[in-house]
Amino acid sequence: MLKLFYAPGACSLAPHIALYEAGADFEAVRLDLKAGDQRQPDYIAVNPKGRVPALVTPRGTLTEAPVILGWIAEQFPAQRLKPEGDDFAVSQMLSFNAYLASTVHVSFGHLIRPERYADSEAACAEIKAKTPANLELQLGLVEETLADGRPWAMGEQYTVADAYLYVFARWLERPGAGGIAPFPRLKAHRGRMQQRPAVAAALAAEDILTV
Amino acid sequence: MLKLFYAPGACSLAPHIALYEAGADFEAVRLDLKAGDQRQPDYIAVNPKGRVPALVTPRGTLTEAPVILGWIAEQFPAQRLKPEGDDFAVSQMLSFNAYLASTVHVSFGHLIRPERYADSEAACAEIKAKTPANLELQLGLVEETLADGRPWAMGEQYTVADAYLYVFARWLERPGAGGIAPFPRLKAHRGRMQQRPAVAAALAAEDILTV
Repeated sequence: MLKLFYAPGACSLAPHIALYEAGADFEAVRLDLKAGDQRQPDYIAVNPKGRVPALVTPRGTLTEAPVILGWIAEQFPAQRLKPEGDDFAVSQMLSFNAYLASTVHVSFGHLIRPERYADSEAACAEIKAKTPANLELQLGLVEETLADGRPWAMGEQYTVADAYLYVFARWLERPGAGGIAPFPRLKAHRGRMQQRPAVAAALAAEDILTV
Repeated sequence: MLKLFYAPGACSLAPHIALYEAGADFEAVRLDLKAGDQRQPDYIAVNPKGRVPALVTPRGTLTEAPVILGWIAEQFPAQRLKPEGDDFAVSQMLSFNAYLASTVHVSFGHLIRPERYADSEAACAEIKAKTPANLELQLGLVEETLADGRPWAMGEQYTVADAYLYVFARWLERPGAGGIAPFPRLKAHRGRMQQRPAVAAALAAEDILTV
């Protein structure tokens, strides 16, 4: 059985959704990041980086959301969670996810934990204040890819990239993030996501709300 | 033929090395980031994100260093640039690369381009000053993985992860990064990398120095 370590509403929500989409047999283990669960020795033994998500598999533990998402899509081919029959399209999906991880997630990180990047209150306030402008550029590129009317991030087919994108569309409602109004297509995508039973199941399991 | 867009010494050096390791037939196109080549319309048509690397393939263009590295390793199986015969070990390599992209590269980004994250000189100075401590934690985890005496990032076998790690071992020599002294195993790894003909070829092609 698989075991997913998650924190409510964190980027671990994406693999959580993907596991429900896959119909996987899994256990979800909640960490309370504010209480510092991620720095406790028992979790550091699972993931020395002290971050979520971590997915324990029969072969060992995987970390990094884009890699866990790609692994789930590979392991459950019948559920069609990656572009079908086309290795290059799979690489494009991985690239989309890598961009979310290394750019979009990072921008939100400046809003949520500016103290990682500077010490003074004044500098932290500046870092937070700059976040919406960075997100507008970065998610603006995603908004453009949706401009051809595609329902899902990679086109007509739903993939794990949609679950990952949903995390950040949800985070736009955080105080200071700027809201989703600048991204009407992303807002529509978020609405489509929230119609999916797997998303409802993951939100219920994490005890968090639709937005 | 493949076409790699790179900037000298940037993270595009990793796929540049990997293409030499693979014995690929490729053309390398240099961008001058200080001159703003990456924001010119002809490059935005290649990569709307305005970043390097981008790899133009017969099927289309790929972006994001970890994805390009994974693609090269897949396309040239005879050169054994990914863990052999073990899908889970490949996922672990992808996870290692994803960590470098979303965490280690991001920390260096704060040293190199703090103005992405704050506006005032004082805040930018704080952001830069905090970088070495973040790198010490983050690359400290890599240093620990090398503690079992393995010659390469993933173990006995050289993979594209080593080319990627080399980029950041090299960047430790940037002013303000803190140097490589805290990471003796990483320093030894960097030395092994610089013995490889593919690394020498990529450094020569980019007209940059060993360190």
